[in-house]
Amino acid sequence: MKIGILGGGQLARMLVQAGLPLGFSFLIVDPKADACARSLGEFVCADYDAPRALQALASCDRVTCDFENVPAAALETLAAEVAVAPAASAVAAAQDRLAEKRRFVELGIDTPDFQAVDGRTDLARAADALGYPLVLKTRRMGYDGKGQYVIQGPEDLELAWRELGDQPLIAEQFIAFDHECAITAVRARDGELRFWPLSRTWHRGGILRLAMGGAAHPLERRAREMVEQLAVALDYVGCLTLELFVAGDRLLANEFAPRVHNSAHWTIEGAVCSQFENHLRAVAGLPLGATALRAPAVMVNFIGALPDPRDWLGLPDLHWHDYAKQPRAGRKVGHATLLAQSPAGFSVLESLLEAKDRQTLAVIAALPPGSNSTT
Amino acid sequence: MKIGILGGGQLARMLVQAGLPLGFSFLIVDPKADACARSLGEFVCADYDAPRALQALASCDRVTCDFENVPAAALETLAAEVAVAPAASAVAAAQDRLAEKRRFVELGIDTPDFQAVDGRTDLARAADALGYPLVLKTRRMGYDGKGQYVIQGPEDLELAWRELGDQPLIAEQFIAFDHECAITAVRARDGELRFWPLSRTWHRGGILRLAMGGAAHPLERRAREMVEQLAVALDYVGCLTLELFVAGDRLLANEFAPRVHNSAHWTIEGAVCSQFENHLRAVAGLPLGATALRAPAVMVNFIGALPDPRDWLGLPDLHWHDYAKQPRAGRKVGHATLLAQSPAGFSVLESLLEAKDRQTLAVIAALPPGSNSTT
Repeated sequence: MKIGILGGGQLARMLVQAGLPLGFSFLIVDPKADACARSLGEFVCADYDAPRALQALASCDRVTCDFENVPAAALETLAAEVAVAPAASAVAAAQDRLAEKRRFVELGIDTPDFQAVDGRTDLARAADALGYPLVLKTRRMGYDGKGQYVIQGPEDLELAWRELGDQPLIAEQFIAFDHECAITAVRARDGELRFWPLSRTWHRGGILRLAMGGAAHPLERRAREMVEQLAVALDYVGCLTLELFVAGDRLLANEFAPRVHNSAHWTIEGAVCSQFENHLRAVAGLPLGATALRAPAVMVNFIGALPDPRDWLGLPDLHWHDYAKQPRAGRKVGHATLLAQSPAGFSVLESLLEAKDRQTLAVIAALPPGSNSTT
Repeated sequence: MKIGILGGGQLARMLVQAGLPLGFSFLIVDPKADACARSLGEFVCADYDAPRALQALASCDRVTCDFENVPAAALETLAAEVAVAPAASAVAAAQDRLAEKRRFVELGIDTPDFQAVDGRTDLARAADALGYPLVLKTRRMGYDGKGQYVIQGPEDLELAWRELGDQPLIAEQFIAFDHECAITAVRARDGELRFWPLSRTWHRGGILRLAMGGAAHPLERRAREMVEQLAVALDYVGCLTLELFVAGDRLLANEFAPRVHNSAHWTIEGAVCSQFENHLRAVAGLPLGATALRAPAVMVNFIGALPDPRDWLGLPDLHWHDYAKQPRAGRKVGHATLLAQSPAGFSVLESLLEAKDRQTLAVIAALPPGSNSTT
């Protein structure tokens, strides 16, 4: 079976790595000539909606995406010729933050208060309604904290407007969360839904730095209900991640990703079947694999450049993922996952981390293990 | 780092799959245009010692093999320009069964009695010395039971000679073994040696059908000593498997493979670091990964054709490996590994197997689990 992927970044790369043992071959479309998945299958360097890209994708047995900002119209066109999963409508639902938040509200999924901002006067009105601080975000194309501005008080309004004001925006209540987490589910064509254990996530500068899978969480059941409501409403096929804020006993949906997601990279080694393999199984119409925890797992993102692998690979149950990308500030170039079977592993990992990540790791080490359900 | 591999079969394919997350790229040389690893890297379709093959391999950072019957002279030539592991001498040591057996004897490694057979009169003399039954084998290029003839009595001598007699042969005592097993080790450039738990193996028609890792074995320590003696004597770098007969309390070396080996495919999911990843780590000079057992594992080879994956993939902790080969009688086209965490998994697996493999699985289910050392 040949699977076409729109987008050739590290997510496509890890999808291919998971799909080769299943006997799949891949066609990858990316406008960037240096897309890191390019050498792992047939590669078409073109815009996602270029005729030759669409023609090549239409010749595949299935089509999926490695990111959400592909033109939904291209997916819609392709769906007439080849099975596309997730569907154009599900991908489109994540492309506009305002539509996304409105969907949460419709579904009864708790989310920070928000206001549409289409002009300077809207912004002032939103600030009045939401109070300070508030977060002004572009509605489209935001990722890794890009296209966001935290407005602390009235004195920031003008600056924020100058930064972002020439496009459709959304203003959101700023949530002083206790921590962040994410829930990843996979849904098959027949509606079967499976959840991986909740991921705890830690960001810095808007970029995910560490994630942990397998710590018990009092709100895990509610998180599952939320992602299930969303997946069913979207008639979703494949992996879906809902990013969440935890504030006291409140669980608030921040955003969802209609694809495999960085917060669940730990499932490659930490779960029986990874998000990458299960996404492909769902897309291909194969039975879903078990999402049960193998062992609590900590994932560290490498941002900008990779450290020397020789310092890391001696650590037992440490798994290395080099995305074969050129180093560049702020770029995700790889990750490592430690299966946290022993406190000794934690202490060696700690010595390898930067100071801020070391502090986070201390928090992780104190989390109760135990989430081990397989539904 | 770019790694050149002589041979582009399923072993090369699984080496590449293990090497991509480490950031390696690959160049594969194989005279067969349909080699199943061909699309996973740069591919040179040529004889192993063709000038353009050697030139391409010499441009790599490291060179290794996916099988042992490559011309040792080609490896020798390459070694002047690029780091080759295992070395030509170690690969050559496995190419001639007579030299291999003599090496075992030199090292004090117990092995079935044998005699060189270079002519018809040698064969009669060997039969007198070894008794019946005896096994006549070609010295070179044998695999999966090919090039072998079991001589039950004097009446078979002429037939065996007609079948095999136009090449250098070896006659071996026939061992009525209780069972077979294999020990796989990995040795780094600095001499560090690690062992995976012993694999129990079951062959039919000379081809491996099932293997299990993680059952306790009373002779495991001796098996480790044997493969260690061999690895040290050969100054070996990479993965090395020693295939063994168990007869009562005797452990006899049958043959060794200077490469990753089918009996240890279960290490992909069943061990912390697989034979494939550790082979590459050794070849690349990276720290070795842990060889500890994750869970007892049963591997089933698919011979000739793959079964329908939809019947298998619903089994929890069942891992599928499609080698992307065309079906052909007697050909290894894939395997599946079940991590044997639950008796339920065994009973479903049993229902999927042919009658003879079902009988073997009953033997496996009765084995004591427990080998869990990490040395």
